Amino acid sequence: MEQIERIGVSLEKKLLADFDRLIVQKGYQNRSEAIRDLIREQLNSQQLSNPKAQAIASVCLVYNHHLTRLMEKLTSLQHSHLLQAICSMHVHLNEADCMEIIVLRGPAGEINKVAENMLSQKGVKLGRINFITAEQQ
Amino acid sequence: MEQIERIGVSLEKKLLADFDRLIVQKGYQNRSEAIRDLIREQLNSQQLSNPKAQAIASVCLVYNHHLTRLMEKLTSLQHSHLLQAICSMHVHLNEADCMEIIVLRGPAGEINKVAENMLSQKGVKLGRINFITAEQQ
Amino acid sequence: MEQIERIGVSLEKKLLADFDRLIVQKGYQNRSEAIRDLIREQLNSQQLSNPKAQAIASVCLVYNHHLTRLMEKLTSLQHSHLLQAICSMHVHLNEADCMEIIVLRGPAGEINKVAENMLSQKGVKLGRINFITAEQQ
Amino acid sequence: MEQIERIGVSLEKKLLADFDRLIVQKGYQNRSEAIRDLIREQLNSQQLSNPKAQAIASVCLVYNHHLTRLMEKLTSLQHSHLLQAICSMHVHLNEADCMEIIVLRGPAGEINKVAENMLSQKGVKLGRINFITAEQQ
Repeated sequence: MEQIERIGVSLEKKLLADFDRLIVQKGYQNRSEAIRDLIREQLNSQQLSNPKAQAIASVCLVYNHHLTRLMEKLTSLQHSHLLQAICSMHVHLNEADCMEIIVLRGPAGEINKVAENMLSQKGVKLGRINFITAEQQ
Repeated sequence: MEQIERIGVSLEKKLLADFDRLIVQKGYQNRSEAIRDLIREQLNSQQLSNPKAQAIASVCLVYNHHLTRLMEKLTSLQHSHLLQAICSMHVHLNEADCMEIIVLRGPAGEINKVAENMLSQKGVKLGRINFITAEQQ
Repeated sequence: MEQIERIGVSLEKKLLADFDRLIVQKGYQNRSEAIRDLIREQLNSQQLSNPKAQAIASVCLVYNHHLTRLMEKLTSLQHSHLLQAICSMHVHLNEADCMEIIVLRGPAGEINKVAENMLSQKGVKLGRINFITAEQQ
Repeated sequence: MEQIERIGVSLEKKLLADFDRLIVQKGYQNRSEAIRDLIREQLNSQQLSNPKAQAIASVCLVYNHHLTRLMEKLTSLQHSHLLQAICSMHVHLNEADCMEIIVLRGPAGEINKVAENMLSQKGVKLGRINFITAEQQ
């Protein structure tokens, strides 16, 4: 079990009222949960700004699956020796287009490089690199 | 087969040289491919800015799997009557934490609402909503 | 004077230690100040997501000042009847290029429209629309 | 005068039609101008991803001007020996709040550090760092 601490935070009455309204709307049960999420988010983006940080990212590609050479190329790119491709998921969007979400683990800078190489392949119509979390070392 | 058109684009010599250097670095085979990607990306973000646009998004959650009630709650949230949860993928990050990537299809505004509700659940440490593509209607 | 309230927040010991380290690095004097900023930031972006929200934005343009017709065009665009151009600032970047930062007030959707029109002018090399704050009504 | 080159770009008929519709809506006069902007934008963000790149940024702060010590502190922060504060502009938002836009020139990493220090001052309610352009060396 993780140890919990309790801290006091002072803030303007109006700011608190606005915040309370927003977190109800977002579905939070209580303020602590909402503030913990804000803090985690900030810590996480700060860690991910370091290209050497060990990170988890999802690369999402929309591509035309009729280009069969593309699938081989994408697969071989997942076998970088610096990155680990943890898993991937394939979605049939319509007759021509597929979507592939690939989860990669490794140094943030290397993930960027490999993902950009995937995105630049002929047949890849859209692509996004989404850094999810920096891993505790 | 999609019909291809060829257009002419005029641009400054230096801008072209810088662009050529960048696309080699990103791994592109030719300029047309790189420019098509820029155009698609711009069209896509413009379409996604409409909350009623039919969209595909991935919601990525990092959470503590010891909170078993959470998994039920997340599953029930995927059964919104306005959205379609196409598929999901589960990754074991470490002893305590799991990552779940859920692919949703539906109106962009509704995806946002459901995803925010997922992110606000107790036990969900980090979350991201990534809009991937607007669907052609 | 604004009324101040004090709330209690519980969070994991490790999360608190990481946060304390980050806020020292960012230069915060105390936790309340750092948490208030996180809350204000979240409220602000939520408000700005509404195209009808009354907003303040800065539009930043880099352009070639030799194109004198451009300056007239940009000036006339600032006289939209729905927006108020509060002020602007002009910076000489180098022999050819100028930068102009224009502060606009009005409905977020209208700011976007006018700013995109500015960005699309011939001679405008780079442009950014930065929403700063939603105004309390 | 900068030398202009003309290149050919091939793209799908539908993609071209969608793009033509979007650029009319944004106010572009012709395709070359719109494509040049996409290319410049991509080059610029790639350059700005290097923390050592010489950059121009605007830092935008909303703060309560009754805290007079704050204004002194912000001014002294602008006198970093690694950065040049080119100019700044002050806007009166309402009775209590001011907005200040400060244009900084220097290495991207240093701009980030100084700007974060500004944002963390007590009395600064909202702040944004907007990188505008990387300078040609």
